[in-house]
Amino acid sequence: MVQSGSVHTIQWVDGHVVILDQTRLPLETVYSALYTTDDLIQAIQAMQIRGAPVLGVAGAMGVALAGLSIASEEPAGFAAQLRPLAMAIADARPTAVNLSWGVHELLSRLAAQRCKTVEQQRQFLVAEAQCMLQEDVAANRRLGAFGAPLLPNDGIVLTHCNAGALATAGYGTALGVIRSAVESGKNIRVYADETRPLLQGARLTAWELVADGIPTTLLTDSMAGYFLHKGVIACVVVGADRIAANGDVANKVGTYSVAVLAKENGVPFYVAAPVSTIDLCLPNGDVIPIEEREPDEVTTIGGTRVAAVGVQVANPAFDITPARYVTAIITDAGLVYPPYEQNLPKVVRSPQ
Amino acid sequence: MVQSGSVHTIQWVDGHVVILDQTRLPLETVYSALYTTDDLIQAIQAMQIRGAPVLGVAGAMGVALAGLSIASEEPAGFAAQLRPLAMAIADARPTAVNLSWGVHELLSRLAAQRCKTVEQQRQFLVAEAQCMLQEDVAANRRLGAFGAPLLPNDGIVLTHCNAGALATAGYGTALGVIRSAVESGKNIRVYADETRPLLQGARLTAWELVADGIPTTLLTDSMAGYFLHKGVIACVVVGADRIAANGDVANKVGTYSVAVLAKENGVPFYVAAPVSTIDLCLPNGDVIPIEEREPDEVTTIGGTRVAAVGVQVANPAFDITPARYVTAIITDAGLVYPPYEQNLPKVVRSPQ
Repeated sequence: MVQSGSVHTIQWVDGHVVILDQTRLPLETVYSALYTTDDLIQAIQAMQIRGAPVLGVAGAMGVALAGLSIASEEPAGFAAQLRPLAMAIADARPTAVNLSWGVHELLSRLAAQRCKTVEQQRQFLVAEAQCMLQEDVAANRRLGAFGAPLLPNDGIVLTHCNAGALATAGYGTALGVIRSAVESGKNIRVYADETRPLLQGARLTAWELVADGIPTTLLTDSMAGYFLHKGVIACVVVGADRIAANGDVANKVGTYSVAVLAKENGVPFYVAAPVSTIDLCLPNGDVIPIEEREPDEVTTIGGTRVAAVGVQVANPAFDITPARYVTAIITDAGLVYPPYEQNLPKVVRSPQ
Repeated sequence: MVQSGSVHTIQWVDGHVVILDQTRLPLETVYSALYTTDDLIQAIQAMQIRGAPVLGVAGAMGVALAGLSIASEEPAGFAAQLRPLAMAIADARPTAVNLSWGVHELLSRLAAQRCKTVEQQRQFLVAEAQCMLQEDVAANRRLGAFGAPLLPNDGIVLTHCNAGALATAGYGTALGVIRSAVESGKNIRVYADETRPLLQGARLTAWELVADGIPTTLLTDSMAGYFLHKGVIACVVVGADRIAANGDVANKVGTYSVAVLAKENGVPFYVAAPVSTIDLCLPNGDVIPIEEREPDEVTTIGGTRVAAVGVQVANPAFDITPARYVTAIITDAGLVYPPYEQNLPKVVRSPQ
């Protein structure tokens, strides 16, 4: 079913959304049907669907679901009801900007369209959300092609968390770069951090890459430094949940540590993300909100308690990697090098 | 049962060894009786008992078990049979030097004793192994007292893995420093890395410190960098499995990463270890053997498969922290600062 990252992470089927439930992978392949914006918000918060780029598509499909749920045929009433439903989706998780971007992008495309009737608006939302899914896959393929030349002809690439087909509408960002390099004939092996607490590396990245036949070695997060120091890693490629105007990167917690360890050992550290991840409204990473998640993600694994009773828990889901650790940012509009303040606006404003 | 680190990690009871099975903690408190050197070696390899200092005591008690198992009453025959049994214990795990140190220390004390009969030798081994247990507790208390002034009067100390009562005959090394600081009236809170794959931080360090009433917050290993960068950590204290002549430190995998992240953020990084951990025979850390353990420690947690099928696994149990990241080494013979080549020999040769 998974062929070169062509997994169906999210689909629009007969007036509702169908997602591959990522909390059940890799042991079970279960699809969930989401009929309402509440269903979608719950699935996003439970991380049944996760990954910044696909959250953009999910946000757009959520707006389409919202449109179908509103009975009013009167344009002003429809708009008044659509807006709070859309905002609730945009706010379902705070750190990745793509979710909010997807919601607002579809709303502004709707506004630009000037549909006459509410039914036309509904049809536009449904059709355009599906376009945005296709656009994400296409963006990832462009991004992969831009990034592939940065990878070694023969070597090991380290990644953290899952920035793969499962984090996007398909193909992946960081894993898209790796897939593109492999497709171009490079001999790439991947070292994948398991990515505690939710083990996206062990469960999702390993699952995707093994299915694609790309040799993959799983590490605990604590081992990345060992291998970077040992000199066996050619470069690091990760995804991003939000990139500030100065190039600071919010991504899955642990990314900052990998970036520091890469720099300390002279290993290039690349961030792969679509332009929709870049948030020029934020001057730097200090103002990116960091989601704090439930303690039981840390104290239990697969429903089994692992931690001593009575211990307190910290569970920030993301961290900020200052721009000075980022060698280059690989986007669907091309490679961006420092100084990021100067070069990020160019790709954000470029026609894609 | 656990009072200020006075847990019975290992005991000599009625001619055999009793250990607290650390693989069952924190959910169950189970003691295992070990009657033969094979029992002991299996328990060490399964990490039912682990931690460099207590492995020194375990090594000595293993030699005592070996002595009791040899039927010969003829000194030359006894010695000939004792030696291979002792060497098998010393080689049960490769990285921590203390296991081998404990075996050889007891053998040399036996040689110095010049017991006339084999029965006297057996009695000496049993009595002296128990002395070495008491010596380890006393060493940790001295070490704790030397280290406590380095800790803040009011602040957060980060630790990795378990260098506590459970890693020693009692009181602990890194946690001994923390306990000593708390006993001296300092207001210390501990951030504990969970320490994948075997979760010694979540299972053992959290269990010990909660029992002692020391406020403890559990982190995944990937979060240590986040908190070091945030500026909330006053200092890091970890244990060690072997320290080379130049001050390079072998310790649980992930220690190197924490050390780099501490230095990058200007946070002092202390290593707490008894003098028996220092191996002046090794010029630097590059020659310390790193144990590679079974893949299923990474792919399964609590018996549940978490990783995608078909993925390869790396599982080095230790890493090497170059001396340049180590602010000071806290030993039972005092604090050691750089240059370590010059200052480590002084504490190794000092009378304790």
